[in-house]
Order: sequence, then structure tokens, then C-alpha cells
Amino acid sequence: MPKLELSQLCDLLNQHGLAATLDGEDRTVTAVNTLEDAGDGEISFLSNPKYANALAMTKASAVILKGGIAAPVGVSCIRADDPYAAVTGAIVAIHGYRKHPTWGVSDQASVDPTATLGENANIAPGATVAAGATLGDNCTLYPGAYVGEGTTFGDECTLFPNAVVYDHCVLGDRVTIHAGSVVGQDGLGYAPVGGKWLKIPQIGRAVIGDDVEIGANCAIDRATLGQTEIGAGTKFGNVIVIGHGTRVGEDCMFAGLVGLAGSATIGRHVTFAGQSGSAGHLTVGDNVRAGGRAGIVRDVPADTEVLGTPAMPIAQARRSMAALHKLPEWTRRIKALEQELKTLKDRLAAKDVS
Amino acid sequence: MPKLELSQLCDLLNQHGLAATLDGEDRTVTAVNTLEDAGDGEISFLSNPKYANALAMTKASAVILKGGIAAPVGVSCIRADDPYAAVTGAIVAIHGYRKHPTWGVSDQASVDPTATLGENANIAPGATVAAGATLGDNCTLYPGAYVGEGTTFGDECTLFPNAVVYDHCVLGDRVTIHAGSVVGQDGLGYAPVGGKWLKIPQIGRAVIGDDVEIGANCAIDRATLGQTEIGAGTKFGNVIVIGHGTRVGEDCMFAGLVGLAGSATIGRHVTFAGQSGSAGHLTVGDNVRAGGRAGIVRDVPADTEVLGTPAMPIAQARRSMAALHKLPEWTRRIKALEQELKTLKDRLAAKDVS
Amino acid sequence: MPKLELSQLCDLLNQHGLAATLDGEDRTVTAVNTLEDAGDGEISFLSNPKYANALAMTKASAVILKGGIAAPVGVSCIRADDPYAAVTGAIVAIHGYRKHPTWGVSDQASVDPTATLGENANIAPGATVAAGATLGDNCTLYPGAYVGEGTTFGDECTLFPNAVVYDHCVLGDRVTIHAGSVVGQDGLGYAPVGGKWLKIPQIGRAVIGDDVEIGANCAIDRATLGQTEIGAGTKFGNVIVIGHGTRVGEDCMFAGLVGLAGSATIGRHVTFAGQSGSAGHLTVGDNVRAGGRAGIVRDVPADTEVLGTPAMPIAQARRSMAALHKLPEWTRRIKALEQELKTLKDRLAAKDVS
Repeated sequence: MPKLELSQLCDLLNQHGLAATLDGEDRTVTAVNTLEDAGDGEISFLSNPKYANALAMTKASAVILKGGIAAPVGVSCIRADDPYAAVTGAIVAIHGYRKHPTWGVSDQASVDPTATLGENANIAPGATVAAGATLGDNCTLYPGAYVGEGTTFGDECTLFPNAVVYDHCVLGDRVTIHAGSVVGQDGLGYAPVGGKWLKIPQIGRAVIGDDVEIGANCAIDRATLGQTEIGAGTKFGNVIVIGHGTRVGEDCMFAGLVGLAGSATIGRHVTFAGQSGSAGHLTVGDNVRAGGRAGIVRDVPADTEVLGTPAMPIAQARRSMAALHKLPEWTRRIKALEQELKTLKDRLAAKDVS
Repeated sequence: MPKLELSQLCDLLNQHGLAATLDGEDRTVTAVNTLEDAGDGEISFLSNPKYANALAMTKASAVILKGGIAAPVGVSCIRADDPYAAVTGAIVAIHGYRKHPTWGVSDQASVDPTATLGENANIAPGATVAAGATLGDNCTLYPGAYVGEGTTFGDECTLFPNAVVYDHCVLGDRVTIHAGSVVGQDGLGYAPVGGKWLKIPQIGRAVIGDDVEIGANCAIDRATLGQTEIGAGTKFGNVIVIGHGTRVGEDCMFAGLVGLAGSATIGRHVTFAGQSGSAGHLTVGDNVRAGGRAGIVRDVPADTEVLGTPAMPIAQARRSMAALHKLPEWTRRIKALEQELKTLKDRLAAKDVS
Repeated sequence: MPKLELSQLCDLLNQHGLAATLDGEDRTVTAVNTLEDAGDGEISFLSNPKYANALAMTKASAVILKGGIAAPVGVSCIRADDPYAAVTGAIVAIHGYRKHPTWGVSDQASVDPTATLGENANIAPGATVAAGATLGDNCTLYPGAYVGEGTTFGDECTLFPNAVVYDHCVLGDRVTIHAGSVVGQDGLGYAPVGGKWLKIPQIGRAVIGDDVEIGANCAIDRATLGQTEIGAGTKFGNVIVIGHGTRVGEDCMFAGLVGLAGSATIGRHVTFAGQSGSAGHLTVGDNVRAGGRAGIVRDVPADTEVLGTPAMPIAQARRSMAALHKLPEWTRRIKALEQELKTLKDRLAAKDVS
């Protein structure tokens, strides 16, 4: 069971550049939890002032707070400028990251004799490594994970259960793919021939950079030619669809149900919020933020925030949406104007006649 | 082969509180089918008057109809106030629910010695029960299903092929998860550090209530801290994405491609239609109905129907959409007004001069 | 390693009805690649004039171009009316389609003794063929693929890793289902009973026509009664959701994240672009094109292009969207009109008084 004194935790946070000071009694904490769920011996935090009520009611033994916010009576407090960053540090210090089961190379796994496994390969029963595939050191494949022919992984990659990487793809180091996600399947590449669709062999590949983490049930096409790319450090939520030949830059963050069509070029540190997406064959600049449901249909310059379908700069989108809300009122006002103008004209006409 | 007299079926329906009377010759029926596909010995129904043509053409031996609608000549009829409920009863009586294959505990399954299986465990080849996991009685795992470390299931749970439940999650009784769905994967929890994303260990869990049914290829995050919850009796369609820490109430119904961001609180008996969704950190009241594509971005009070993105009360949304359809007309009318007013002013100016 | 003279490639293209002539030195090419990635011995193409810069910079040995576009110095050229069709032919000629690993019927596969396998069955370790299922000749099941009880496949079907077809469904010939997709799961069929949802047994099936290709992580419901149908020749991208009882016609093309609710009837050669969808119980005519994000809520006549939510004919949608963009301007103009009219009335009133 994990265990840490609050004073030790402050030291650790300070070592990581997160200024933290103990405000109250030093105590031993054994877990981090939410304000609602925390109990005796647990530490929690308040980051969003919206949850101040939960702070008053918490049964936690300690909380992480900004200066100026009073801790409830009897609850120890760690003061931090950024409670969210500090609680992240606390979770890492007390709980750490998930430890995988240890399978070694299971004799119920299917590892082709021509495949190459690095040091400490951890291959579960029911996982597959196909012919000519190469895994770096310390890779973990959960049950049902599949590594296709000629595909190469760097070190410390993890495929959770039933994650699939097709043939001849490339993963960098420390790539994590959650359950059910698929990388490298054929994209929607067909040539129209006499009202039918003739399949174009998809001979390109998908290349996933270092430190990429991909959520559950995503689908990242291989390219028709060349490669689909997900840049190093990029993080995907669940059920994200990336079309063939699209290139996503480094350190991007995509939330659930995002879809990008093929041959798009996405810059660095771009965020796509839930259910947003983009058409293909366009360019999105660095640091662009696409809001929830945004549908990008043309190039977006760097450092822009967009919203709406078709997506537009956020200020314009907000004005348009506000105006849309008021449309029924505006139509009434137009009708009133028409009526008034008619009245006025009738009156003038009457005067002319008189 | 199933087989039932129409008179027996009426008795059964009446026993279940669904008033039903035989109108015509008593016959044996062996299957329920659509009006289009039904043949000799089969029973069908008409619920939606839109399909009255199909009734006239049906080759069914019997139909379930409301009073006042004539059955075709030679077709027996069961009269019921609610033909849709009655046909549901007929399907249950004649066909029943899917029977799973019987595997016992396959010796090609991977069941960790520290896992606990209840009575009548039905574990297919290629299914996995990891260390410390506990299944209640009468649970079925299809091939490729995965139950993570320390996860607990109640009784009569079913994981269809390749459904995955991560470690330390909880399923109640009679939970059904269809093929490819994933419960308990890490959510999109990262702290921004110098332009990079630092992973926050996701140490919470996902808790699925009794009688929940989840469609294919869904993805339900575990919580960062505390728990993601799906309330008892809730039913999900396919490819539904639930963010970390979101709590969905009891007896909700979500259609395909719905996405909820994290830390949302959804009430009881809420319906989300296809491709709708919600931002995070908000509250949706009981009995709310979100229409197709609705995008909820702020709290919604109980008993409200919403539509549009951003979602608004349905009456307002319909007025706005109707107005949007007519926008080009309104803009023409505004231009006309401007022109008329100009003409009027010019005329008045001319008069003043004259 | 594949290898072809440019003159041979021209001959092959001409044989397939794609007029092609060599313009420049005959060379041996060993691969097709993008203009950016192609190197010595590789052939590329320019179809979209947007990428003309890439043509100037290419290191390819040969390119396929329309007449009238100059090839870079030293690069051989094949002239074709339709470079995109010609490059498809080149990819097929030089690379061909993916070759599956050869497993025969693996003794680590689970094939029920009552199942029937055709000639040359290729069943991987960890694949399942349940009781009473029938596969035609030359079918391939990758690891984790699942064929349910009583399901029948035609010839030359392929299930990629972890693709699942439930019980009693039907696949035609040459059906390809990519990794993680699911066919035949229960739809969202429940009868409301006293605030709870009573499950309706889903006793229909899903029927997939010849030459259908389905991308990764799709979900196609079985019907409650009768059948869900995907017509011959239809191609699906990734994460497409089809509700129970919906019938999709032949030679359709659906991009990623498309969702159709239940009991819809979709014609032949219909295209749904990314993230578009349709409500249930409606009819979409032949050759309809639904643009990105289009949300169809009522019948659409054949040969129509629609856009927007609710979807409308594209010309109308474009006008409405353009007007929406300008809404803030129009509201300003209405306010100005109101002010001017007021000024005018005041002036007239003053005159009347004077």
C-alpha cells in the first residue's frame, strides 16, 4: 500500500518545480481521491471554484488548495499555485502508473519465428506478432493484440487488449494504444469505374511518433502511398478516425469522436475538441484550437480558435450563433419594419393626394 | 422449433397485462416477422400507420393490430391496444432471448489462478480473466473478451467477442456488453507542462450498474479519481464515448455515436439521440431528451427537450432552424427595405427642396 | 521485388481502357509513391493541380501527368487523361493487393465440429467459427476474428483481426471486414414499460452483399425482425454505425463516423461524407450525396446533394450558411433601418405639427 507524509509530498513537488507548502498538521496519506469520495487518510484538491461546496463537505484528511482559500476545519492543507499540477504530482508519487501483468513471452501467444522481440518482451496469451515484425525492448502486448507483418515498434510500446496494428507500419518509442484501436487499416481508396468502385491497393503505411497515446476504438488509416503520420507526443481520446495520408503534428490533443478526412496536414500542438473534425486536403496551422463540433472545411491559420460548421474564427462563430438564437426576434422586427414603412408610404401617398 | 397457437399467445399477453383478443381463426404460428418478410405460419404487426401498404400485401398468417384497422382477407388478427408492446411479447414468447454457446470454462481460456469464478461460468477459448478478478454466477465471456485485474462482475453478465473491461472496474448484475466495446480505459488526462502533455495516472474506475446493456464498439473511460458511472437499467447503442468521471443516471437511452465529455452529470431516464453529445463539467436533469445531433454546452433543466448546437429548447431550436432556412429570403427583404426607405427619403428630400 | 518498364505499364493501362502514352525515356520502376516521398526508380503522379509545387521538387524517376503539364527535367512521363485512374492501374500492376499470411486451418483456431469450411480455408490462431457456421472457398480469418453460430459466408471473404460477425448473419462473396468491426449485434430495441426498458429479442439478421468492404471499428446492427442490408459493392470507411433494419443500396460509399438510425432505406450509389448521418424510418433516393456533417431528417429525392443539419439541398444550404456568416451584419442593418425609419417618422411628425 502506498504511503506518504504530506511534508514528503511537498518536498517531492518542490523538487519538480511545483511550489508547495504545508499549511496545517503533517499527516500520512495513502491515496488521492475526489473531494466527494475521499475518506480518512486520503488527500484531495480543489482546482475549479465551481466545486467549493464539495470542499466544505469533504471527509479527506488533506487537500491541495491555492492560497486564499480556507481549508475546512481539521483538514490539513498543501498550498500550491497550481493545485491541478500538484495533484498530478501527488497521484504519480503515491499511486504511480499502471503496472502491466507479467506474461514473459506466453507460449499461448503466436509469435512468428521470423519476428524479432527486444529485451523483456511481455506478450500475453492470444497476442500475435506476425512474420518479420520487430519489437523494441520492454514492449507489452495484451491478449488479442496484433502486430502485422513487417511492422516495427520502438521500445516500451504497449498494445492493450485487442489493439491492432496492420502490416508494415511503424511505432516509435513509448507508444501506448488502448483496447480495440486499429492502426494501418486500408483507407477509403477506390477509383470510380462505370458506377462501381475499384479498390486502389493501399501500399503506404502509418507512422506513429514517440510518446503518442491513443485511446480506445480509434481507427488510423494507412496511406495509399507514402504515410499517414501521428506526430510525437500527440494524445488521442477514444474513437478518433484519421483518414489516409493525413499528417498530424507533434503534441496535439484530440478528444473523443474526432474525425479527420484524408490528406490533411495538421500542425503542432493543435487541439480538436469532442466530435469536431476536418475535411481532407487542407492545412491547419500550429496551435489551432477547434472547439466542440467544429467542422473545418478550409485552411486555418496558426494560433486561431475556430468553432461551428463550417468552422469560423470563434468570435465570429459566437456572434453568428447569438444572432441565430435571436433570428425569430429579428424576423419579427423585419416584418414590423415592412409594416411601418408601408403605413408611412400610404400616409405620404394620402398626403400627396390630399 | 418454436410453436404457439394464437389463442395461447393472447392468454400470455393478457397475463402480462397487455390486453389482447383473437379476431379470426385460431392458428399455429412459428415465428414473428416483418409484414414484408413474413410467410405462411408467421405473425406480424402494424404499429406505424406509415406502413399500411405493407399490411395489405403481407403473406403473414396473422397480424397484431389496433382495433379499427381491418386485417387483410384470410389473415387472422390479434387485437391489442399497443401492437408494438404486444409484438415484443410475441417475440419473447415464440423466440425468446439469444442462447449463448456453452463452453464451460474452456481450457483454451486464460483464467488466472487468483481469479474467482461463480457458478456455471461460461468462458470461451481465447477469453481472459486476469489476476484477482471476480465473476458472479452464470457469467458468459465470448472469445477475445477480457476482464482486467481486480475487476468484479455481478451475476449473469455477458461480454460478447472482444469486449474489454480494464482493471479494477465493477459491473453489476445482468450487464451485457456487445462486441468490441471497452470499459475502463484511461481517459484523456494530461497536464500541460512546457508545451508537452504529462500523463496523469488514471487511478479511478468505471462502475456499470445492474441491467445495463452496451452496444458494439463503445468506449467508457475510467475516472481519473473516483468513478465513472453508468446507472442501472441504462441502455447504450453503438460507438458511444463517455469521458472520465462522467456519471450517467438510471434508465437512460443513448443512440449511436453519442459522446459525453468528462465530469458531466446526467440524470435519470435521459435520452440522447444519434450523434448528439455534451460538453463536460455540466449537469443534465432527469428526463431530458437531446435530439439528433444536439450539442449540449451548458446545464439543462429536468424534463426539457433540446436540439441544435449549441443545444437549446426544442421550440426555440425549431424556430431558429426555420428562420435559418428562410435567411436568404429575409436578407432579400432587408435589402428591399433599405431600398424603399432610400427611395422614400430621396422623395421627401426632393419635396423639401421643391 | 516488383519491377516494370514504363512502356510495359503503358501497354497494361491501354489494355484496361486507360489511354496512356510514354513521353520521355523508357525506364524500369519498382514502386509507386507520392511526389514528396518518391525516389530513384519510383513513379508518381499529379492529379490535383494544388500539388504542382511537389511535382517541381519530386525525386521520382517517372510521373503520370495529363497532357499540357510539363514534366520536370530528367523525369520520364506517362501521359494519361485521368492520372488518378492510371496511377491506380500502376499500383495494381506493380504492387498488387495485400497478400494474407497463410495459416491453413490453425490448430489454435476454434472451429466447431458442426461448422463447414470451404476450400483453402485460412483460419488463424485465435479465430473462431461457431457451431453451424458455413464459410465458402478461400476465406481468411485473422486472429481474433469471430464467426457466430449459423452464420454463412460466400467465397473469398476476409475478416481482419478481431472483426466479429454475430450469429445467423449472411455475407456474400468477396466481403472484406477490417479490424474491430462488428456485424449483427443487437440494435437498440427496447419497449418502455413503467419507466424501464424491456429488451426486445433481436431475432432478425444482417445481410452483407457481394464485394462489400467495411473499414475498421464499424457497427452494423442485426434487424429486430427481417434484415439489415448492405448492398453489393458498397464501401464503408471507419466507425460507421448502421441501425437495425436499415437497408443500404448497392455501390454506396460512406466516409468515417457516419451514422444511420434504424429502418432507413438508402438507395443505390449514395455517398455520405464524414460525420454525416440520417434519422430512421425515412428514404434516401439513388445517387444522393450527403456532404460532410449533413444530418438527414426527412426523405431525400434521388440525385440530390444535401448539406447542413437538418439537411437541405446544397444550394439552399450554402445560401443559408453564407447568410448565417453575415447574420451579425444583417442585424446591424436591421437596427440601422429601425433608426432611420424612426428618424423619418419623427421628421414627418414634426412637419405635420409645424
